[in-house]
Parts: sequence; structure tokens; C-alpha cells
Amino acid sequence: MKTGLDFLLAAKRCEIDGLQRLALTATWVDVTARLVHTLQRERGLSNMYLAAQGERHTGARLTQIAMSRQVEADWRQQIERVDASAAQAGPGARLFSRIAYVLQGLDGLDALRQRIDERRWDTAQSTEAYVRLIAALLAVVFEAADSASDPAISRRLVALFNFMQGKEFAGQERAVGAAMFGSGHAEQAEQQRLLHLIESQERCLEVVGTYAPPEIRAMLSAPHVSATLADLERLRRVLCTTTQGSVLKPELSQVWFDTCTARIDAMKAVEDRLTQDLGEACSAKIAQAQAELASFGAISADAPPDPLDFYQAAGDGAQAAQASKSFALTLERSVLDLVHDQAKRLQAMGDELEAVRASLNERRVIERAKGLLMAHRHLSEAEAHKTLRQMAMNQNRRIVDVAEAVLAMADVLPAARS
Amino acid sequence: MKTGLDFLLAAKRCEIDGLQRLALTATWVDVTARLVHTLQRERGLSNMYLAAQGERHTGARLTQIAMSRQVEADWRQQIERVDASAAQAGPGARLFSRIAYVLQGLDGLDALRQRIDERRWDTAQSTEAYVRLIAALLAVVFEAADSASDPAISRRLVALFNFMQGKEFAGQERAVGAAMFGSGHAEQAEQQRLLHLIESQERCLEVVGTYAPPEIRAMLSAPHVSATLADLERLRRVLCTTTQGSVLKPELSQVWFDTCTARIDAMKAVEDRLTQDLGEACSAKIAQAQAELASFGAISADAPPDPLDFYQAAGDGAQAAQASKSFALTLERSVLDLVHDQAKRLQAMGDELEAVRASLNERRVIERAKGLLMAHRHLSEAEAHKTLRQMAMNQNRRIVDVAEAVLAMADVLPAARS
Repeated sequence: MKTGLDFLLAAKRCEIDGLQRLALTATWVDVTARLVHTLQRERGLSNMYLAAQGERHTGARLTQIAMSRQVEADWRQQIERVDASAAQAGPGARLFSRIAYVLQGLDGLDALRQRIDERRWDTAQSTEAYVRLIAALLAVVFEAADSASDPAISRRLVALFNFMQGKEFAGQERAVGAAMFGSGHAEQAEQQRLLHLIESQERCLEVVGTYAPPEIRAMLSAPHVSATLADLERLRRVLCTTTQGSVLKPELSQVWFDTCTARIDAMKAVEDRLTQDLGEACSAKIAQAQAELASFGAISADAPPDPLDFYQAAGDGAQAAQASKSFALTLERSVLDLVHDQAKRLQAMGDELEAVRASLNERRVIERAKGLLMAHRHLSEAEAHKTLRQMAMNQNRRIVDVAEAVLAMADVLPAARS
Repeated sequence: MKTGLDFLLAAKRCEIDGLQRLALTATWVDVTARLVHTLQRERGLSNMYLAAQGERHTGARLTQIAMSRQVEADWRQQIERVDASAAQAGPGARLFSRIAYVLQGLDGLDALRQRIDERRWDTAQSTEAYVRLIAALLAVVFEAADSASDPAISRRLVALFNFMQGKEFAGQERAVGAAMFGSGHAEQAEQQRLLHLIESQERCLEVVGTYAPPEIRAMLSAPHVSATLADLERLRRVLCTTTQGSVLKPELSQVWFDTCTARIDAMKAVEDRLTQDLGEACSAKIAQAQAELASFGAISADAPPDPLDFYQAAGDGAQAAQASKSFALTLERSVLDLVHDQAKRLQAMGDELEAVRASLNERRVIERAKGLLMAHRHLSEAEAHKTLRQMAMNQNRRIVDVAEAVLAMADVLPAARS
């Protein structure tokens, strides 16, 4: 017959299992970050290759593709290790469904590369294709963050996800800018897209500022990062202020690419630090939980409890009862005390976790509202975002509240005319 | 090497595992409901025994205790079957910690009964003790509802939990009323408590109205239920309107007990229907998910996909691409289509689940705010609830918003002077 202590131990083991799953998650989030990074470079070089009519950047692009293939193999290998049987029902199903989607994209990657080789797709199509694949990879990290059972780990995953998303906006900025310089002239639609990407980066980094450990936040304002950013801002100004149809110097294409790349590589260093910190936090949590488990085992039979403790000591009277007993049992703690402490701690953890997950949920609501606006009003992503932001400003409400209102209207919105 | 289809299948299996765990949960929620029911009767009879100075109700009480022991043995046996290894990290740990707490209470039950046998505890102490144990059992059901991965099942668990909670308030009402009639006079504090219990029952049944299937809701207003309620309301009026210190007829004690018991037994019939429906819903969901799994298997190699589908058909263009393909592939669906459908469905399920869980979270916030008020201002539960309700009315806000504000103030509240 199982006792209260058995279930107390089971609760602790359950926590440890969850942490161990998170530690495994941390390792494949790391390789996912590397895969995203290499695909971002491949996207940028592909755009430069296309913009140069296939006359330059051929070698650099092929080298990058070889590197992407290597990291893809690593990623596929890591994914094999994901243990389906140990997954949680809801989050697990979502995670696997996201992985299935990524695999569809990876399976089509060589066909995509061939289209680019033969220059049958233009820079816009090529950018869009890579954006889609990288978004699918980021969705995997999002689900991982959403399924974390420990608030401290969840905070780190939320920071990491937002950092990766911000870095992806920086990567899209590099691709769009490279195509603009490469084409030799400025178009207003592309300028608007660029501004949207810059703003989106900043939003993501704000969230990182809230959730990342302080020493990592400090890396974001290191001197060499700021220096690169100053160079980048000069080029951004050129891109965004050149009047519609005016000439952009194609020779700045390489300078732009190198500057963006220097910045993104600096971001990669921060990202590496975030994934490393995530792994370390998992290990530390596991060690701590195991120590607690061991300490539970030690108290098992020592203090035979008063069977009426449950009815006398629980609730309001707990402190008083505790105080009156403490001279007798200075070192010994009853199972009931442990159950109380444990329940309190788990409750606090659950509450904190809900708070962290709320920030993910806000993102989900905003994304869905944007998707709805894009589908119903034929808007681009940038326009949909601008619409939401404008509504929020006009109504003096938070953007997430406006997004929720948009979703609530979904059923009554007329279908789009195509 | 695992394919996209493998992960699609893994996602479905993950859902099925979750549903099977829920089916197991449904069986032990059922025995938990039976244990609560028998303890509620034992509490009522114990109060009548104590109120009669141990001169009456001895036999009925002992018969009831024997029955409680039987159901307790069933409960302990069911609990043995809870599989710790398959549990989710956060909710699982909370659930086990709750079970550990219940076991502490059950281990002390015979000592409690002895106190009552020897009449060393009065009706207030005895009621309080049983209330605590039953609350611990209800907390187990609460965690089960909170950990459900399927929104349809979660709705049923939320309805069931609220129904059990409402029935427990009805049981407390029976115990308090029995003690009042038994003591032979009306006290204002007990009258206030009775009113609070009546109001709390109604609040719980409102939530049941929102989440229970309609045919079960209809049972709540069946003719024989209404007839019993009319008798009960008459006796409630006697209890609540008799002026402070006035005489209550002790011979009404038995009438009160029987009327309350008739009502609670009618509620038990509804509860049985709710647990039965829960089990059936789990079975139906499992069968449906397994049929879907089988249909996934059938499409495996049939339609070799265009590797560029991912980059062309996803997102906005999905419908258009789908339409253009549909004449060719009327019956065959690609893995990519399935992945899209699956992701959409899982997302919708996740959103719905969050909405259902929000109602549980509201309850948690209100309970914590009440606990805080009780500790800091030395209020009874009824007084704390009244305070929150009064604040909500004064500020024209929902009670949950007021509760959140109270919790936000927790750090700045002065410690209670004892």
C-alpha cells in the first residue's frame, strides 16, 4: 500500500523527469538555433547571387549550402532522440506536429536550391521560402517554451525564443536590404518592410530584456556590438530615406551584407550564451531536485507522526502548531510538514509559470489577429501589424487587447473577395 | 531516419496517450466522488451523535463508518494504479502532492473517530475536521481537471469539480443545520455561515450550468429535485430567521437531516451521471483519435508529394493551391495537408483549453485572496468571502479582479497581530 511519503517522492520524481526532458529540449533547441543561423546566411547569399544575375557569390553560396546540409544532418539526428512516449499530451502533440511541418520543409530544400541555381525564382520568392522554413523552426522553439514545467527554465526559453525571433528579423532585414542594394533602386514597399523588420527586432529584444539573466542582457550593449550597430544605422538610413525609384549603389550590397552579418554573428554569440545558460540552469535544477529527493528519503521512518496532526495543524493553525512542536522536533520534520511545503512551492511555481506563459500567449493572440487581417483584408504582414498598432493607439489600449477584439470579431467578418 | 509522417503519427499517439490517462483519471475521480459522499454522511451523523450527547444515532453512525472504510479501501486501491512515470511534470507533481496530503488525512481518520466516540471534540471541531479532509479530496479532482489535455474532457471535469464542490457546500449545510437544531438554539454566526454555504452552492451550480452537457443540466430541475428543495427551503427559513438565542426544536434535527440527505442523494445521482458521461466521453475521444491514426497510416506512400509544396502551398496561398490541385487528387491527401489540418486543430484545442482552464484559475485566485484575508485580518472563510464580494460591489468590478488586486497587495499588507 502506498503511503503519503510515497506520493511525495513520486511528486518530486515527476518534477525531476520534467526537468530532464527540459535538459534534452535544451540540447535540440541549441542545434535548432544553429540550423536557423546557417539557413539565414544561405538566404542572404542566395539573394546576393540572384540580384547579381548569378554572376557573383556562387562559390560563397555553395560553401554555405554545404554547411547548411551538415547542420541539417545534426538537427535530424537530434530530433530522432526526442522521446515520443515521455511527452505531455497537449504540448507534445503540438511539438511533434511542428516538427513534422519542419521536415516537410527540409525535404523540399534541395528543390528550392535548384530553383535558385537556375534563377527561376526571384529574390522575393527566395526570401519568402527561407522565411517560411525558418518560421517553422522557430515555431518548434516556441512550443518547447510553452511546454516547460519550471518557471525559471520557462523564462529562459521565452528569452531565447524572442532572441531567435529578433535575430530572424535581423536576418530578414539583411536579405531585404541585400536585394534592394542589389537591384540598384529603392522601392517604397520594400522600405516599409525594412522599417517593420527593424521595429519588430526591437520589440523582441525588449522581451529578452525582461526574461534573460542580467549578465546576458549586458552582452547586448557591449562596445563592439554598439560599433557595428552604428555602421548599420548609417546604411539603414541610406536604404530608408532614398526616394522612391532613386538609384542605390549596387557596390554597397557587399558592405551591407558584411555589416549585417557582423551584427548577426554578434547576436549569435549572445544566443550561444543563452542556450548554454539554459542547459546549465536545467542541470542545476536537476541537481537541486535530486538533493531534495534524497533528503525526503532520509526522514522516512524517523518521526512517527501524531495521526491527528492533519486535522489540527493544517490551515490557519499551522504556524502555531509548528511553533509549539518545534522545541521537541528541532531537526525532524514530519511528512505532513513536507507535504505542506511542497504544495505551497508547487502552487507558487504554477502561478509563476502561468505568468511567463501569458507573454507567449499574447504573442500567439497577436499573430492570429495579424493572420486574420492578412486573410480578410489582403494585407501584408507589415500592413497587418501596422493596422493593429494604429488601432491600439487610437483606442488607447494594449496591442494584445486590440488583437483579442479582432479575433472575437472573426465570426462576423465578411469573407475576403479574391 | 524519421519522416514528417512519423512525427504526425507521434503527435496523434501523444494525444491518444493523453486521452487514455484521462480515462484512468475518470475512474478514480468516480471513486473519489464516492468517498466524498460517504464521508459527508459520516460527518452529518457524527454531528447528530455529538449534538445528542452520544445518546442517539450511535448505530447509524457506526454503520456509516463501516461503509466509509469500505470506500476508502477502494480509493486506496485505485490510487495504487495511478502511473507516476506517465504523468506530466507540473500538473503531475501537484496531483501527487495533493494525494500525499489526502493520505495523511485518511491515516488520521480513526483517531478522529475516536475523539468523536469519546465526545472529546464538539460539533464545530468535528465538522471542521471532515471539511478539511473532503477539501483535500476535492483538491485532487481540481488538479485532475487542471491537467486535462482535451478541452471537451476538461469542460466535463470542470463541471464535475464544481458540482462536487457545490454538493460539499450542501453537505456542510446539512452538518451546520444539524448542529443548530441539535443544540436547540440559533446563533447569529452559524446563521451567517449557513447563508454563505447556500450562496456558495448556487455559485458552483452556475458554473456546472455553463460546462455540463445539457441533458445533465436538465436533471438539476427535475420535479422530485424541486419538491425536495421546497421542503429544504422551509427549514432553511426556520434556521435563518429565528432570532439570536431563540429556541429551535431539536426534534426537527432528524427532519432536517433527512431532507438534506434526500437532496444530496439526488445530487449524487446527477454526479454519477456526470462521472459516467466523463468516462464515455473519454472512450469516444479515444476511438475517434485511433480512427484518425489509422487513416494517417493509409495515406503513407500513396501520393509522392511535390517537394516544393511546402514553399508554395503554405500560408496565404494554401486555399488557392489546394483548389488547383483538388481535381487531380480528389481522394488523396498529402502529408503536408494533414500537417496543416493537424496544426490548426491542435491550436484550436489549445485555445479552447486555455479558456476552460481560465475558469479554474479564477477559482484559485479567489481562494488565495480569501486565504490571505483570513490570515491577515483573522476572518472566517464566510467573512473573507463577504469582504471580497462587498469590495467587488463597491468598486463595480468582478470578484476575481478584486481578488487579484488583494493578492497584488499581499507584500505590503502588515502581518496580523495574534
